[in-house]
Order: sequence, then structure tokens, then C-alpha cells
Amino acid sequence: MNQLLLFEEDLVSESAALIKGRRFLHMKEILKNAEGDSLRVGLKDGKSGIAEVVSMGEDHAEISFNLKDSPPPALDVVLVLALCRPKSMKRALYYAVSMGVKEIHIIRSYRVDKSYFLSPVISDEGISETSLLALEQCRDTIFPVVRIHKLFKPFAEDILPLISAGKNKILCHPYSALPFPDSVSGESVIIIGPDGGFIQYEIDLLRGICFDCYSMGERILRTENAVAAVLSKFS
Amino acid sequence: MNQLLLFEEDLVSESAALIKGRRFLHMKEILKNAEGDSLRVGLKDGKSGIAEVVSMGEDHAEISFNLKDSPPPALDVVLVLALCRPKSMKRALYYAVSMGVKEIHIIRSYRVDKSYFLSPVISDEGISETSLLALEQCRDTIFPVVRIHKLFKPFAEDILPLISAGKNKILCHPYSALPFPDSVSGESVIIIGPDGGFIQYEIDLLRGICFDCYSMGERILRTENAVAAVLSKFS
Repeated sequence: MNQLLLFEEDLVSESAALIKGRRFLHMKEILKNAEGDSLRVGLKDGKSGIAEVVSMGEDHAEISFNLKDSPPPALDVVLVLALCRPKSMKRALYYAVSMGVKEIHIIRSYRVDKSYFLSPVISDEGISETSLLALEQCRDTIFPVVRIHKLFKPFAEDILPLISAGKNKILCHPYSALPFPDSVSGESVIIIGPDGGFIQYEIDLLRGICFDCYSMGERILRTENAVAAVLSKFS
Repeated sequence: MNQLLLFEEDLVSESAALIKGRRFLHMKEILKNAEGDSLRVGLKDGKSGIAEVVSMGEDHAEISFNLKDSPPPALDVVLVLALCRPKSMKRALYYAVSMGVKEIHIIRSYRVDKSYFLSPVISDEGISETSLLALEQCRDTIFPVVRIHKLFKPFAEDILPLISAGKNKILCHPYSALPFPDSVSGESVIIIGPDGGFIQYEIDLLRGICFDCYSMGERILRTENAVAAVLSKFS
């Protein structure tokens, strides 16, 4: 944890908060905070700065803070990700949020295992928790919007054209001939397919709404590894 | 597993092998292979191609194969990585091998927790197993060379100058002013520091042997996430 995230309900005044639960245990057991120590905090959807530990109680800490720093700039990328194995999915989400993505669409496609949609990783609570941990890691305060789409065709035909209008449209596809550009600037929508890739019907549909296929090379990467590698191309 | 890796000891002839243990269980339970099925295989340090399942026994499979494809090109990067938490380390190693790195040096520095060196993740067996799984993922056949260095100064003064001679020398350092280049070509040595970064003494020593500091941006990424993101800049 590189920054403790504060929520409205933690605040006791404009510059003081009570910290309980997991975050308190982290302060106590990992950071080994004592009265007078300082630590980095950020207010959800707000600014960041330094807090001072006023007191460490049995089950809560009191801190006072002064928040002046804006969160790091977001990445101008909308990430569309076919649902993968829950373990990979959780890490893909964590890396994407850590790298600054603020809009993520998790979709079904032909080669997505239907049972993955039952995973707690993509429940509201699961997504919130992973996002929180990633924001704490990268010192951001702004949660991403994450949407789940259980039907490919309506997503590709009705939603994708709206969210990608006027943006770079990039489809990562291992069997494409175009090499991925070294860097991409400007608002972009990037689609990463499932294990085994999209089927031809899906590719055709995405091409039909002007997505271009790019390959990340011969090597087949795990989804979360591909997410980190691809996002690194955007600035 | 996108490619089953074969070892000398599996071979019964130049074009046939017996598969046992974990790989056999994977064929049986995950791939659900039956006689006549085909699957992708590669010979350690050699070529890849398609194999046919000749028979599925109780505890082994017999396959015949024809290997024509060369492994994917290696990444011209020597990765020097300060040892991090074992869980992160394992993934960092997995991603680096998946992305084609063939020479990895795991080092100690001031902020590395000494106890991490006891982790099975960096034992010979741990490194071999992680490398094998990563090679199976990315369809490569060539194992990386991984070295562990428990003393920073002798590594930086005696070994690093030798392995970095004539190559791009890049040090990832979060507090540096130089932004990371969009892409880097040519042989390179890249150094990624520990949680909390290198201390000034270490930075000075690395600068002294001509490593330049580059920042990956304001966000602090987990080591394995940084590894995937940084390696993606190299071609």
C-alpha cells in the first residue's frame, strides 16, 4: 500500500479521519504506525497528501491530514477485455487500474467460459476491492467504471460504436499481420480477446465498426501480462 | 499451456516421445487428449511443431511429432531485478520469460528484505518450474539463464560492467526526471529496483557505470506489472 485511501464515512472533520478495519490493521501491523508518524493518504475521488497519526487505538486510528496533490493523470484508454480465468482477470483488472485506466468493459465472446461469469472476482464487491487495492498501490484516488456485458453482439453493435466514436480503435489479435505501434497517443479504445482469440465472426463484426487488428508478436501472453504490455504503449 | 515442452529424457526416437507426470495429466484432464488428437509441442532448446497422440495409457501418453518451427525471437534485453516479495517475484519471472528475456539477474540491494532469499521461488527448482510454465505459455523452447547475486556492490562493480558493455544501460527509477522512451531497440540492460527504490548510494554507483535513470511515470507499479510494462518498450 503506497497510499491509504479515505472515504467520506471515515471523515470526522475536513482534515481528520478515523481509520478502522483492514486499513487500520495495515497501519498497525505492516506500517507499524505510532502516534506522530506520517503516512500518505488520498481522499476517494479527491486529492492526496500527507497525514499524521494522532492516535492508535485498539481497533481504530485517528489521523489528521492536509491534501494538496492532484491524482496522477488518467490513461486515455477505454479497455475492453474478454472475460478470462478469474485469477488472470483479477490481476488484469489490478494492472489496468494501477496503470490509470478509468473505463473497463468486461465482455463475453464465443471462447469465454460461461462459468467465469459466476466468479466473485467480477461481482461488484470483487471489482471494488481489486480497484481499491490497485489505487492504493499506484497512489490514485479515482475509481474506474467497470461494466460487464454478457452478450457479445449487442455490445459490439450498440455500445461499442458509441464509446469508440472519434477514438483510436485497436483490436489486439495474435493472428493479425500489422505489428503494434511503438506508442499510441490520443483517446483510444483497445480490445483484448479471450484465450484462443476471437472467432472470425467476432473479428469481422469488430472490423465492421472500424477496429484495426494489431499483433503483439508471436508469443502468446497470459491476459494480465498482455494487458500490462499493451497499456504500456499508450501515453 | 499453449505448447507442451519435451525433454531429451522423454524421447524414445527422433520423432516419438513418452509423456508422464504433470504434462500427461494436463493432456488427459485439461486438453482431454485421445488417440489421434494433435497438439503443439516443442523440444527443449530446439524446434516446435505438431505432435499426434499415438496412445493414452494409464500414466503416460505416447506421441509422435514433426518439429520444423524455430522458437520465437528472443528479446535483446538483460533484466536485472532487485528481489521482491516472492509472489511478485514469481510473476515477474514468468512475465519476463513469456516476453522472451533470456538472461535475468536477481540482485540484493539495501531495501530488499533478506528473508526473501530463502524463498523456494528463487531456488533452482522454483526458477526452472516457473520458466517451464512460461515457455509453455509463450511457445518458446529456450530456457533463460537466471543468476542470483546476494551482494550488491560486487555485482554492480564487477559483473554489471561486463554484461552491459556496449549495450543500452537503463535504470528504472521512479524519482528520475527523464521520461521512458516510447521504444528502445538494440541490446539493452535494464535494471528494476526494489519496493521503495534504490538508495542514493546505489543510484550513484549505477550512474557511475553509465546507467541512465528513466521514470515510468508518477504511478508506482507492482514489480511484476512494471516488468511487463517496461519490457513492452523493447523490440
